[in-house]
Amino acid sequence: MLIVKKFGGTSVGNKERIFNVARRCIEDYRKGNDIVVVLSAMGKSTDELIELARDINPSPSKREMDMLLTTGEQVSVSLMAMAMGFMGVPAISLNAFQVAMHTTHRYGNARLKRIDTDRIRNELEQRKIVIVTGFQGVDKYDNITTLGRGGSDTTAVALAAALHADACEIYTDVDGVYTADPRYVKNARKLDEITYDEMLELSTLGAGVLHNRSVEMAKKYGVQLVVRSSLNENEGTIVREEINMEKMLVSGVAVDKNATRIAVIGLKDEPGVAFRLFNALAKYNINIDIILQSVGRDGTKDISFTVEEDVADEAVTIIQKCFPKSDYKKIDEEKDVAKLSIVGAGMSSNPGVAASMFEAMYDCGVNIKMISTSEIRVTVLIDEKHTEKAMNAVHDKFSLAD
Amino acid sequence: MLIVKKFGGTSVGNKERIFNVARRCIEDYRKGNDIVVVLSAMGKSTDELIELARDINPSPSKREMDMLLTTGEQVSVSLMAMAMGFMGVPAISLNAFQVAMHTTHRYGNARLKRIDTDRIRNELEQRKIVIVTGFQGVDKYDNITTLGRGGSDTTAVALAAALHADACEIYTDVDGVYTADPRYVKNARKLDEITYDEMLELSTLGAGVLHNRSVEMAKKYGVQLVVRSSLNENEGTIVREEINMEKMLVSGVAVDKNATRIAVIGLKDEPGVAFRLFNALAKYNINIDIILQSVGRDGTKDISFTVEEDVADEAVTIIQKCFPKSDYKKIDEEKDVAKLSIVGAGMSSNPGVAASMFEAMYDCGVNIKMISTSEIRVTVLIDEKHTEKAMNAVHDKFSLAD
Repeated sequence: MLIVKKFGGTSVGNKERIFNVARRCIEDYRKGNDIVVVLSAMGKSTDELIELARDINPSPSKREMDMLLTTGEQVSVSLMAMAMGFMGVPAISLNAFQVAMHTTHRYGNARLKRIDTDRIRNELEQRKIVIVTGFQGVDKYDNITTLGRGGSDTTAVALAAALHADACEIYTDVDGVYTADPRYVKNARKLDEITYDEMLELSTLGAGVLHNRSVEMAKKYGVQLVVRSSLNENEGTIVREEINMEKMLVSGVAVDKNATRIAVIGLKDEPGVAFRLFNALAKYNINIDIILQSVGRDGTKDISFTVEEDVADEAVTIIQKCFPKSDYKKIDEEKDVAKLSIVGAGMSSNPGVAASMFEAMYDCGVNIKMISTSEIRVTVLIDEKHTEKAMNAVHDKFSLAD
Repeated sequence: MLIVKKFGGTSVGNKERIFNVARRCIEDYRKGNDIVVVLSAMGKSTDELIELARDINPSPSKREMDMLLTTGEQVSVSLMAMAMGFMGVPAISLNAFQVAMHTTHRYGNARLKRIDTDRIRNELEQRKIVIVTGFQGVDKYDNITTLGRGGSDTTAVALAAALHADACEIYTDVDGVYTADPRYVKNARKLDEITYDEMLELSTLGAGVLHNRSVEMAKKYGVQLVVRSSLNENEGTIVREEINMEKMLVSGVAVDKNATRIAVIGLKDEPGVAFRLFNALAKYNINIDIILQSVGRDGTKDISFTVEEDVADEAVTIIQKCFPKSDYKKIDEEKDVAKLSIVGAGMSSNPGVAASMFEAMYDCGVNIKMISTSEIRVTVLIDEKHTEKAMNAVHDKFSLAD
């Protein structure tokens, strides 16, 4: 078997943890498997490098930031190779150049284009464990790039796809994917399996043990993922296309508190208003989530939508620039809101799921501010202070603990 | 003018120093010059990385050490590019891959083979300051290598040669090359000029502001070097082939305390003994310095030689393995010795220089244990405790302060 294993920064945060990861990889290696390991930078080292940079230049060139940050993973992989060497197993570290990981040249947020597998295959044939820097790539001019958030997961999935790996294991600090965040829902249960689409909805909703880019890539190339803990031997959660059991009506409950509701009140009710509004926001790369349009009084309408909290003020400014003051009455901004979602692949063929969710909200006395749905998801916007109560109500309603 | 400037680790040890270096480079840039900067890793960062590695594995793979250590220069160059960016000057950092610096594959001590200049020239044409990682290279399989001691100086000289630079400035924490170490000789004087050969003798003798590898390369490719301080604007010392003034009889006095004298006493006086002895030491890469052979009593001879202190014990062990105990009487090891040398290009055409040196030793009552000479150098081995007295005596004898 060829297994790609990815470990995050906390998993390689110190000497003991590095040896712990080495031990886990060597166990599988000794069973005769080929092992490719993808690592992030150690613990807080990326944050420290960012601080170092900001101290020199508050808005440094993105190219130079990538040049700086990618040293972090190079330190991790070389130390890991030394640890494995100490344990008597031949290992070799490779950075993005050496692999090579070809990306676009968008610094800080590059996309993988192509991975050469010759070098890795060559090293595997010599029975070495191959340790690859996550998160990084090179553009066609040999500039160093980084893949942005969730980059190391993406590296692992892309390598698994390119190498036609038999398994891609994403190690994290939790046991797998849960029916709800165990910090808020006491009887949350770990899922054995989940589909790509469910995982995508969950990761987009901030329940993210996996970044959606990596899940999308896994789905596209049919890479079966396993999300499991680097701290224990538990089985973890398998992410794949078809799941063995009957499709779960609802797999999990997810919450995203990083949302702000913006309402533009009293807009002139004429064609093209919504287009102008959302086109302006799109130009500034502001992602819109739930949208609600309601007819107001006196030939006006109200448009509400949610955005991520940290771009909310920018969004308001853009709207003020886009529309003359006379075109609308006022703009409301509400930050203390949370998006509560249920996700389940079985939902699409089962009417009434959304209604059950609304009923759960009613039962626990939580007001619904906005609603959004997809094929396999129902999302409601509620007051942030009711998050925990609402989560538990929904979790119970769909008997997710059983 | 195209100027290559090299700054060591202490010169970029913190934010203030990084900006100091940036400022000096920008001054010359603004005069219309093309600037290529070569940097070492910041301050003690290489030592910290070595410690990190040794904690994981006391004898790590050399390949992985190079992979680890080269992150240090990459941090320096990216931060420098950010500092220059902050000061409003376009700058770009390049690592060994990006340049590319082709080397042999001898990890930890690779030799430069070829430098591509296209990328650097291209960036210079866009009026960018180009900042290159010192000390590192890549072998033909894309493995990362390091150049060993004095590596960053070598990178700078090699770049100056490959780019046909008009000047190669080596910045250090001293003002230039002195007639003697100012810590021991109060009236030591900074030299304005010195020849490659003199500099080679001095650096080999441990007076090393420059590593001999870089001086040899500068001589070979006719790269004129300037050694100067990164802390002030003083002129520094020019290192070149021909010097303008009449050749100095003696340019400077150098001392190397890192020497041990080993004497093999009572060796059988038969052909091939010296060959066997030094051949065995050469096999283990032990460099021999001064050699003295004297006829002993009863058909035996004594062979004495000096080696660097840290390999002295190993050298003794090798001799014990190489010769059966019956072939010699005993082996003496004397560690408290120092090599005192005078160096001067004018010496070769002036008889009597060596005699004057011996006279100086006699005048100050210092016993000479061994003597070695080259065309432009006279070295004596003395007791280490007499170093300072002997240095000053020689410095005065040749009126080096004038």
